Amino acid sequence: MRAAVIHGERDVRLEEVPDPVLSTGGDAIVRVVAACVCGSDLWPYRGVTPVQEPRRIGHEFVGVVEAVGEHVERIRVGDFVIAPFYDCDMTCENCPNGISTSCLNGGWWGSDDRMGAFADGGQGELVRVPHADGSLVATPGTPAPELIPGLLTLSDVAGTGHHAAVSAGVGPGTTVVVVGDGAVGLCAVLAAKRLGAERIVAMSRHEDRQAIATRFGATDIVAERGDAGIARVTELFGGIGADCVLECVGTKESMDQALRTARPGGTVGFVGVPNGGPELPLGFMFSNNVGVNGGVAPVRNYIEDLLPEVLDGRLDPSPVFDLQLPLDQVAEAYAAMDERRAVKVLLRPDRVSPAAGHAPSGGAPSR
Amino acid sequence: MRAAVIHGERDVRLEEVPDPVLSTGGDAIVRVVAACVCGSDLWPYRGVTPVQEPRRIGHEFVGVVEAVGEHVERIRVGDFVIAPFYDCDMTCENCPNGISTSCLNGGWWGSDDRMGAFADGGQGELVRVPHADGSLVATPGTPAPELIPGLLTLSDVAGTGHHAAVSAGVGPGTTVVVVGDGAVGLCAVLAAKRLGAERIVAMSRHEDRQAIATRFGATDIVAERGDAGIARVTELFGGIGADCVLECVGTKESMDQALRTARPGGTVGFVGVPNGGPELPLGFMFSNNVGVNGGVAPVRNYIEDLLPEVLDGRLDPSPVFDLQLPLDQVAEAYAAMDERRAVKVLLRPDRVSPAAGHAPSGGAPSR
Repeated sequence: MRAAVIHGERDVRLEEVPDPVLSTGGDAIVRVVAACVCGSDLWPYRGVTPVQEPRRIGHEFVGVVEAVGEHVERIRVGDFVIAPFYDCDMTCENCPNGISTSCLNGGWWGSDDRMGAFADGGQGELVRVPHADGSLVATPGTPAPELIPGLLTLSDVAGTGHHAAVSAGVGPGTTVVVVGDGAVGLCAVLAAKRLGAERIVAMSRHEDRQAIATRFGATDIVAERGDAGIARVTELFGGIGADCVLECVGTKESMDQALRTARPGGTVGFVGVPNGGPELPLGFMFSNNVGVNGGVAPVRNYIEDLLPEVLDGRLDPSPVFDLQLPLDQVAEAYAAMDERRAVKVLLRPDRVSPAAGHAPSGGAPSR
Repeated sequence: MRAAVIHGERDVRLEEVPDPVLSTGGDAIVRVVAACVCGSDLWPYRGVTPVQEPRRIGHEFVGVVEAVGEHVERIRVGDFVIAPFYDCDMTCENCPNGISTSCLNGGWWGSDDRMGAFADGGQGELVRVPHADGSLVATPGTPAPELIPGLLTLSDVAGTGHHAAVSAGVGPGTTVVVVGDGAVGLCAVLAAKRLGAERIVAMSRHEDRQAIATRFGATDIVAERGDAGIARVTELFGGIGADCVLECVGTKESMDQALRTARPGGTVGFVGVPNGGPELPLGFMFSNNVGVNGGVAPVRNYIEDLLPEVLDGRLDPSPVFDLQLPLDQVAEAYAAMDERRAVKVLLRPDRVSPAAGHAPSGGAPSR
C-alpha cells in the first residue's frame, strides 16, 4: 500500500510500504476513505520537533473495515468507522473516566502499538487498528458522501475544540474567548456556540478564518494580538476579561494571551500541543484565580455524543476543510497548510478497494 | 494601641502604634477579640520573603465594631464581626463573581488600603476596615465564647481549605488527596468531608496532625513523601491516582506531589501561596489532562455559606488551634509555629475595651 512518510523538515513523501496484517486478535484493518493533515503535523514538518528518522505520519482518518481479528465483537467487516487520533481500549482504568488519551494499553498512530507491532499512520491507504472494539466507532449504515468531511472532524479537531470548551467550563450564558484560528480554534468556536455561550470572541487576523468563525457562531472578532489584543478583549468584557478562554495554539505567547484575557476566577481550557515546553506562571494564576484545565483531547469519549448531530446536520464542522487533495499530493497538502494557503486539507486515497463498496467522492468544498 | 510589627527574620514585636481613625465614611473600627498567626506569616518570619522595612502583620481576626463611618449601612456599632484576610467592597465587577480577592477597590491588611490610608494588620488591638459593608460579616447576636475559635477560622483557613476543595471539584463520591498538614490542609480535609468525598487521604508525617486529620474525616494517612508518597497514593487509587488533589503548601515539591497524585483527568485545587515562584509543567498537565484551579481564596464569598454551620456546630474547624496565647506573647506564637510546636496559634488581646462588652475568654483548648 501507499502511505505518507516524513523524512525531515518540509519532506513528506507518499511511499510504498507493507500492507498491514492482523496480528493480535483484537485488531482490525481499515481502508481509509478520508484522512487529513493536523496543525500538530506541522511541528515536525517545520522542524520545530526534529524528525530523528523517517516515520509514518497522520492520525486522523475515517474508513471502511476490511478485516477484523478473531476477538473483535463490536466492529464488523464493512462498517464505516471513525477512528480517534489514537488507539485505546475503552476498558482500562482511565478510558471510562473519560480520558481515553491516557489509555493504559493504547498508543499513537505511527508509533509502536505497545503490543510489539508497528502502528500505521493515518495518512495512508490502510491502517491496522490495534484495539478495534475500543478505538473505532461505526456509523449506523453507510453515510452519505457529503457527510464524510464532518465525520472526519470527529477524529480530532471537532472533539478537540469541544474538549477546550468543556475544560473551560463553557455553558449557557458564559462569555468566551478563543485564541487560535486554526481548525481546532474554529471548532472551539463551534463547540462554545453549541454549549450555549452568550458571547464568543474569535481572535483572528485572517479574513477567511474570520468568516468561518462568524459562521460557526463568533459574535466578535479581535484581530489584535499581544498587549493590544488583551486590552481589546478585556474592554469587551467589563474591563475584567471573559469567563472562559479556549487556548488552541500551544505556544508560550498564545497561553500568555489566554491567561491574561480570562477574568479573575475564569478558566483557560487548553488543547494546543505545548510547543517548546512553555511553563505556566503559577503566581499569576494564584493571584487571579485563573484555572488551567485541558490537555490532549480524549476525542474518543466524545464521538458518540457528537456523531448524531453531525449525521443529522445540526453540527457541521466540515467548513474547516477548505482544500481537498488526492493522497498522492500529500506533500502539497502540507505545504498549503504550512504556507497558510489552507486551514485544513482533506486527503483521499485515490485507489479504493472495490470490496469496500465506497467511492472516494463528495465532501468538502475545494478552495 | 498595641499591634504586632515584623522587623525582619524571626523578629516580631508587639509595639505601641497610633490608634486607627475613621477616614473615608465607608470604614469601621473593629476591636479585635481574637486573631491568629497564618502559615503564610511564616514566609517573612523565616526570611524566605525578605522584610524590606518594619511593617504591621497579621490578617485574620474577629472582633466587635467600635465605630463606623457615616456611609456604613449594613454593619453597626456593637456587632460581632468576622473579617476576611483582605478588604473588599463586594460590589465591583469581580466580587459578585465570587472572587472578592480580586476586588477592584480592595486591599490587604498591613498595606496601603488604596484610599491613601494605611491599613492595620490583624494582629493588634484595633483594626480600621476600609470597606466595612463589604468586608465584614456580622454574626446574629453575640456568639458564645466557645464558638470564637471556629468563627475565627472563617477569616482564612476554613474558607481557604474550602476553596481548595471547591476548586478541585470535590463532590459526593469523589476521591481526594490533601497535600499539606498545616491548618489549611486540615481544613481542606474537613471541607472535602463536608462536600461528600468518599475517600480522603491526608499526607502527613506528624502524629498530632494526623489525629486532627482523622477527626476531620481523613480515611487514610500517608506519611511518605516524594516518589514514595506518590507511589503509595497511586496504589490506593487503582494505580492511577485520585480525582481531586488539594495542594495546601505552595512549594515546588508540594505542587509536584499534587500533580503526580492526580489521576488522568483529575484536578489539583491549589491554595498554597506559591513560594519561590514555582512554575507549572504544562507538558505534564497536557499529557495527563490534569487541571490546576484555585488561588488566593475568596473566603469572604464563602462566609455566609459556612457561618450557619459553624454557629450550630455542624462544622467545627476550631481544633486547628492547638495553642492559645495573649497578644503580648505574639513572638512566642510565631516561634511555636515556626518550630512546629503548634499547628496554629490563637492570639487574644488582653486589654479589651469594657465598651465592647466582650471578655476575651473561652475558646480553643490549650495545648
